[in-house]
Amino acid sequence: MSSEESNSNRQMARQNGIVQPLLTDLYQITMAYAYWKSGKVNDVAVFDLFFRTNPFQGEFTIFAGLEECLKFLENFHYSDSDILYLQQTLPDNIEPEFFAYLKDLTCKDIRVSAIEEGSVVFPRVPLLRVEGPLIVAQLLETTLLTLVNFASLMATNAARYRMVAGKNVSLLEFGLRRAQGPDGGLSASKYAYIGGFDGTSNVLAGKMFNIPVKGTHAHSFVTSFSTLEDINSVIIRHAETQEPCNLLELAIEWRKRVSAIIDISPEEASDGELAALISYALAFPSGFLALVDTYDVKRYNFQGLPSRHRQHNMNGHSGYNSNCGTNGTRVLKSPTIHNTYGFSTVERTLRSGLLNFCAVALALHDCGYRAVGIRIDSGDLAYLSVLARETFESIAGAFKLPWFSKLTIVASNDINEETILSLNEQGHKIDCFGIGTHLVTCQRQPALGCVYKLTEINGQPRIKLSQDVGKVTIPGHKEAYRLFGADGHALIDLLQRSSEPAPEVGQKVLCRHPFQESKRAYVIPSKVEHLYKVYWKDGRIHTMPKPLHEVRERVQSSLRTLRQDIKRNLNPTPYKFLKFQVAVSDDLYNFIHDLWLQNAPIGELS
Amino acid sequence: MSSEESNSNRQMARQNGIVQPLLTDLYQITMAYAYWKSGKVNDVAVFDLFFRTNPFQGEFTIFAGLEECLKFLENFHYSDSDILYLQQTLPDNIEPEFFAYLKDLTCKDIRVSAIEEGSVVFPRVPLLRVEGPLIVAQLLETTLLTLVNFASLMATNAARYRMVAGKNVSLLEFGLRRAQGPDGGLSASKYAYIGGFDGTSNVLAGKMFNIPVKGTHAHSFVTSFSTLEDINSVIIRHAETQEPCNLLELAIEWRKRVSAIIDISPEEASDGELAALISYALAFPSGFLALVDTYDVKRYNFQGLPSRHRQHNMNGHSGYNSNCGTNGTRVLKSPTIHNTYGFSTVERTLRSGLLNFCAVALALHDCGYRAVGIRIDSGDLAYLSVLARETFESIAGAFKLPWFSKLTIVASNDINEETILSLNEQGHKIDCFGIGTHLVTCQRQPALGCVYKLTEINGQPRIKLSQDVGKVTIPGHKEAYRLFGADGHALIDLLQRSSEPAPEVGQKVLCRHPFQESKRAYVIPSKVEHLYKVYWKDGRIHTMPKPLHEVRERVQSSLRTLRQDIKRNLNPTPYKFLKFQVAVSDDLYNFIHDLWLQNAPIGELS
Repeated sequence: MSSEESNSNRQMARQNGIVQPLLTDLYQITMAYAYWKSGKVNDVAVFDLFFRTNPFQGEFTIFAGLEECLKFLENFHYSDSDILYLQQTLPDNIEPEFFAYLKDLTCKDIRVSAIEEGSVVFPRVPLLRVEGPLIVAQLLETTLLTLVNFASLMATNAARYRMVAGKNVSLLEFGLRRAQGPDGGLSASKYAYIGGFDGTSNVLAGKMFNIPVKGTHAHSFVTSFSTLEDINSVIIRHAETQEPCNLLELAIEWRKRVSAIIDISPEEASDGELAALISYALAFPSGFLALVDTYDVKRYNFQGLPSRHRQHNMNGHSGYNSNCGTNGTRVLKSPTIHNTYGFSTVERTLRSGLLNFCAVALALHDCGYRAVGIRIDSGDLAYLSVLARETFESIAGAFKLPWFSKLTIVASNDINEETILSLNEQGHKIDCFGIGTHLVTCQRQPALGCVYKLTEINGQPRIKLSQDVGKVTIPGHKEAYRLFGADGHALIDLLQRSSEPAPEVGQKVLCRHPFQESKRAYVIPSKVEHLYKVYWKDGRIHTMPKPLHEVRERVQSSLRTLRQDIKRNLNPTPYKFLKFQVAVSDDLYNFIHDLWLQNAPIGELS
Repeated sequence: MSSEESNSNRQMARQNGIVQPLLTDLYQITMAYAYWKSGKVNDVAVFDLFFRTNPFQGEFTIFAGLEECLKFLENFHYSDSDILYLQQTLPDNIEPEFFAYLKDLTCKDIRVSAIEEGSVVFPRVPLLRVEGPLIVAQLLETTLLTLVNFASLMATNAARYRMVAGKNVSLLEFGLRRAQGPDGGLSASKYAYIGGFDGTSNVLAGKMFNIPVKGTHAHSFVTSFSTLEDINSVIIRHAETQEPCNLLELAIEWRKRVSAIIDISPEEASDGELAALISYALAFPSGFLALVDTYDVKRYNFQGLPSRHRQHNMNGHSGYNSNCGTNGTRVLKSPTIHNTYGFSTVERTLRSGLLNFCAVALALHDCGYRAVGIRIDSGDLAYLSVLARETFESIAGAFKLPWFSKLTIVASNDINEETILSLNEQGHKIDCFGIGTHLVTCQRQPALGCVYKLTEINGQPRIKLSQDVGKVTIPGHKEAYRLFGADGHALIDLLQRSSEPAPEVGQKVLCRHPFQESKRAYVIPSKVEHLYKVYWKDGRIHTMPKPLHEVRERVQSSLRTLRQDIKRNLNPTPYKFLKFQVAVSDDLYNFIHDLWLQNAPIGELS
């Protein structure tokens, strides 16, 4: 749909309206003026954009944000109002010719090489190498960092969730309301998708980035109905015959039949909830997925488990790890609070919703529709999911409806990586997680620390020395290669001077620790990947960035080249070479150390 | 400048382009359809937007984001492309009339009452009360939450930094590169300013919100110069006489004269650094503020403190808490690494920069300009600031230039609330902090948990019950009052039913704990503040939100009404009533409990 596409492009442009040259730190512009004034207009520089530590105490990072960087370069232009603002903001003595210079500035002489978006990347290996006029390259710093830092952080976070959840569970991003601003929310939706999520609740993100959007209803929908009289229309046409069916009557009938299995009587379930679910089913008969934890059952028996529950559920026909306690109540590993009523608190909460859901789902089935499933948003998610699955299986058996046992169970409620690991350990029957705050704000570590360092000027290398070796920059114009072993796994990333020939498959490569002379090793790679492509050159995009879904696939394929122990959540093995994050060639090693000696202070005995 | 203003408005519109009805969770729209289909188009609802816990383990929050909420209401409209997208995204069976209904939807029947933006607010007291058609009010939920959550979190964070830094220190927001996306950065700049910061490095934020922007240069500026030959022009005209002055010659001369005070010889300081600083001074002679920690001194003496240093600096003429160690080296409380060279690592780093800075500043003075100061971006900031201040004072004395002792010292480098508290404790001479990552990502707690709860529908109150009393909602249409004591400090916030008369000054008010019958107290307020104003009504803004600088003032004046112990960083006293976050009137108490009994399950002995 081309009109839709152009609309969507306009939306993008609107969002990208704020990604413009003034979205930067003032010092970039004051430096530009000082460079301009000291005659450095034709100076040529090389900057490396890289990070020093993987986020989330992990050992890998996903590189993202490249496409947005390229769009920024494409649109880089100071508008008249930008120039006017700078004239008003900078001191009066700025020469007017400088503003004329800024006015005409574009990225036509800039060249950007980068690692492919969606790749697994590691500390110290430049993600972007920016070459060109010193002033322009300097002016790009802050915006490029802003675009890469959060995008990569989010994609990494999402990829970590995907890994702990496993391939067979759906992951949905539900975090817009807690995101750091509207665009924080949009970026989160986009890069969570890239990192391996299956969809988002964020409708605008769906529209702008063509990401699947998902969602059903909130608790407030349920509480807005009080009684069965709150339902307006109750008639739905049969999916095939088109005969009118009374969904309310059918649901009430089914509620009676199902009540033995759910183990509460129909009078104990909430009628307001049933009204809400029927209304929702009437609106979405083919997409009926209901939130089922709004109400407690209205009434319950004291003393131990109710007899029906005991008969039905104590056969232990699920794989769930539960045991009978001394008094016949369940003993759970998970922190369920049991009370004197026999049902646990969470179990009681679920039962009204489960009964009503099943009643409506079966009624819908009479009308030719299949329900989708339930969402649980509170309580002991492992236990409740098992309880729900057992219930679905019992109903499937009792009414000979095998599909009922496969209904989807969605879980939400403040879920993070650790929650999923713990649920996995307990055993659960959840098909889909909805994840919000922890995902979208990257709560565990809300910023990635990419930096942008000058490595060469007018062909002369630059090194930043520091007492902290981790902060010494690796100077000069460099290439990066990933060397793979015979089993297909990545072994190490190697930095070389750009003047050196690339490492070759099957040939010994001397890899050195960049700062410790004695640490060296030969590597014979079975595959060599040159990590950089030129993405921007001659004022235009030189290599087209991949579309979103391909970047998303790239994340998974790139992760597959990493050994499992590097990816694991707990105590991952570092992807390191002789305890340093990256290896350097012999040539680069000598280059670094010659330069270091030239620049380091010399002591004097006195 | 009206053309500038209209430009700025266009910028705003561009940014706000993404704040639109589709910036929401899909379930709001599916619920809207289900409501619409069940005939609830004319249902009228009341929603409260509130949070349950103050962020950052503090006891107060600053409410912000209201102006953006009002702009969102003003622009609330589904575009043709939005409708098309929804038609493609929602199931096929959605009735076309629903899309026609959405197409015409506006906020004309919505009424929003709110607390004044910039006010100190507390848990459980609604920040916004949204009344009107159920469907429309529900459709606003996610976007309002997104706009209030991060804005309030940022403003609160900034206000906390302001409190620990004190009134006399400048605070600058430097976080754009680490923010959660481009708009995360813009929002951070805006709400940091509201919360009490003095400016930002973010140029676009300066342009869009008329916030002061600040910045000088980076380390890369210094390292891009190697020798004195790298300076292009060295001539500057005298500020008054307009006579040409050779800044390089003057600076070299001054470097010789100052070297005794800085305690290194001119040959030991970096010439590249001097070249960079001269170039910067030539560009910004009236705004010369230099980063001084790029280089180590080139050479240093072994064994103990150099003699000049000892003579000059061991007189202890600062208020800095330092002692002589047994071997004559300083013993510092702060974790400075001393080496065998006598100078500490950080001290050595500063000396080259300090010498070069002072030389250039004094040369500038010969040309009729006053330098602004220095920035330190590494090392022991307390100690280095004291060292720099001592140096400035010595120079002021030696050359009879009193203003030199007042030069500004800016400190940056991963600063957070705790760093500032620790610097305060150690004693420092810093005039200005530049704060980035911790501020803009709210690293300590990256999300505020505002929720949006249905409290009334068609005049009928709604209560959400929960085993966790903290999650029980306070039902019905309510007003909030802040009661003040005789000393002018706020005592407690009181919720009442809207039908009740307002509390009166000097009259006893019975305040009750909302959930514990026996907890009650009389309060005789010396002042009563009704917290709500109607901000949106009849499809337009009813009360104009205050401009940014007034909201900023409101933050400080509102904070002044809080007792100091509630605001302190460590173990603050809760602003609570009988251990609950908010008090309720007797009438509201009874209303809550009647409703609770009607809705709670009844046990049955069996």
